[in-house]
Amino acid sequence: MRHTVLRSATREVAIGRDRPFCVIGERINPTGRRVFQEQLRAGDLSAIERDVRAQVEGGADVLDCNMGVPLTDEADLLARAITMIQGLTDLPICIDSSVVEALEAGLAVYQGRALVNSITAEDERMEQILPLVKRYDAAVIALPNDVDEIPMEPEKRLQLVRKIVDVAHGEYGIAMEDIVIDPLAMPIGADTQTALATMETMRRIRDEFDLNMTCGASNVSFGMPNRHGLNATFLPMAMTAGLTSAIMDARTPAIVEAVRAADLLLGNDEWGMAWIASHRAKQTT
Amino acid sequence: MRHTVLRSATREVAIGRDRPFCVIGERINPTGRRVFQEQLRAGDLSAIERDVRAQVEGGADVLDCNMGVPLTDEADLLARAITMIQGLTDLPICIDSSVVEALEAGLAVYQGRALVNSITAEDERMEQILPLVKRYDAAVIALPNDVDEIPMEPEKRLQLVRKIVDVAHGEYGIAMEDIVIDPLAMPIGADTQTALATMETMRRIRDEFDLNMTCGASNVSFGMPNRHGLNATFLPMAMTAGLTSAIMDARTPAIVEAVRAADLLLGNDEWGMAWIASHRAKQTT
Repeated sequence: MRHTVLRSATREVAIGRDRPFCVIGERINPTGRRVFQEQLRAGDLSAIERDVRAQVEGGADVLDCNMGVPLTDEADLLARAITMIQGLTDLPICIDSSVVEALEAGLAVYQGRALVNSITAEDERMEQILPLVKRYDAAVIALPNDVDEIPMEPEKRLQLVRKIVDVAHGEYGIAMEDIVIDPLAMPIGADTQTALATMETMRRIRDEFDLNMTCGASNVSFGMPNRHGLNATFLPMAMTAGLTSAIMDARTPAIVEAVRAADLLLGNDEWGMAWIASHRAKQTT
Repeated sequence: MRHTVLRSATREVAIGRDRPFCVIGERINPTGRRVFQEQLRAGDLSAIERDVRAQVEGGADVLDCNMGVPLTDEADLLARAITMIQGLTDLPICIDSSVVEALEAGLAVYQGRALVNSITAEDERMEQILPLVKRYDAAVIALPNDVDEIPMEPEKRLQLVRKIVDVAHGEYGIAMEDIVIDPLAMPIGADTQTALATMETMRRIRDEFDLNMTCGASNVSFGMPNRHGLNATFLPMAMTAGLTSAIMDARTPAIVEAVRAADLLLGNDEWGMAWIASHRAKQTT
């Protein structure tokens, strides 16, 4: 059973099929948050404090941090944000950027063992980012799409996973347990067969490569009503297909609770201690 | 794709892997309901009216009806209850009893095509009940346990499913699509590996026999806190393993909603119409 080990300065989290699901809080991300974008443009990172607190209280195991705001020095913002978050919590961080320089700046200041978000199967992206992952002894999220397309067929996604493994593991020497595949969860509203394809892709990645997986889980419900209800149902289903972590809403109790219930049902909550303790905690607050 | 077709006098419901999940309301059952038991002992069936209404409003597709109260004429009670329910709703009925005479009395008064609950792999039970299923052209729920044990190992349950199919289909001529297997969902609180064994059993029944399945879903959370949360998570997970119906809580919105979300994610809610319509209905009430 492969374990992707992430660390802050003082805390370790292992992602794996025999471990409780790894909840990666998605909130520290300016996408779709206009006020937060304005604040970041003005160099004001104070909103992060609230986002950290809400996600820690909600039960996140890792925090994603993305500072992708156009017309800013993203590398500087990301490095400052990471330093700030590490002063607020001991949860490990998933360093999230499409800008190579920003990933490097984030890795340079990060205390611990980070998860880099992300590479794709595109040669250029792998060439730029994998040496950083190796140098900073990080783990990396890899998406099975290339410059041409996001393939819908599980078989094509598997081919791209094979390519990623060949390059990341074969050429750059990244350990298999440090490659975390994001099998690409697409909006169900655009195509009601897409979750089936995603879950089939997950099962095959589990069975053929035994790699850990994550996905942007909230994407599934994009454009549909009652998004929380869909998200809370998708995650346990995907967990039966081998999903071991997700970049997700860690602030909505019903969604985190569904993941913890699935932990118990999958045999990853011994004696149901975590489930029972969480119930007790709710009763005393 | 096999369809188990159930009917009332005026309504048809088909259970199948390409259909929305079949929600069989569990409520009309005196087990654990002391007041209802007393009423039934006194011949008072009036509480059924409220149970029917709540489950129809909650989104049940079929209603289970069990009148198992010690020291009563269960056959008479069950026949009266079924007649009463058929006057209140056009949902098909799952006729539920451990008493052969009660099943026969229920089948005799039932208008339509019923689901009989249940046989096991025990010879005597099959000999007594399968001729009734055949004579009344019903479908039947079959549990893979025998007189010796409820086996925990998927392989042993599969052996008993094989025996049930050999006898019910091979000897009594019950169509494969009218045999609905209950793979036995046990309480997770007693053994945290049990849901894994149940889902493995489901996957194998689906892959090896392609039979429809149901289970007493609320049993999974027995003895644990936050039962609704566990039940709402278990069902979508089991649906990924081939479960096509459940005898379940149809009165708790979060549980029925989880099933309808899973319908959408499994491609059984075309264009998401049912999901969207249910959201609109909630907004206008």
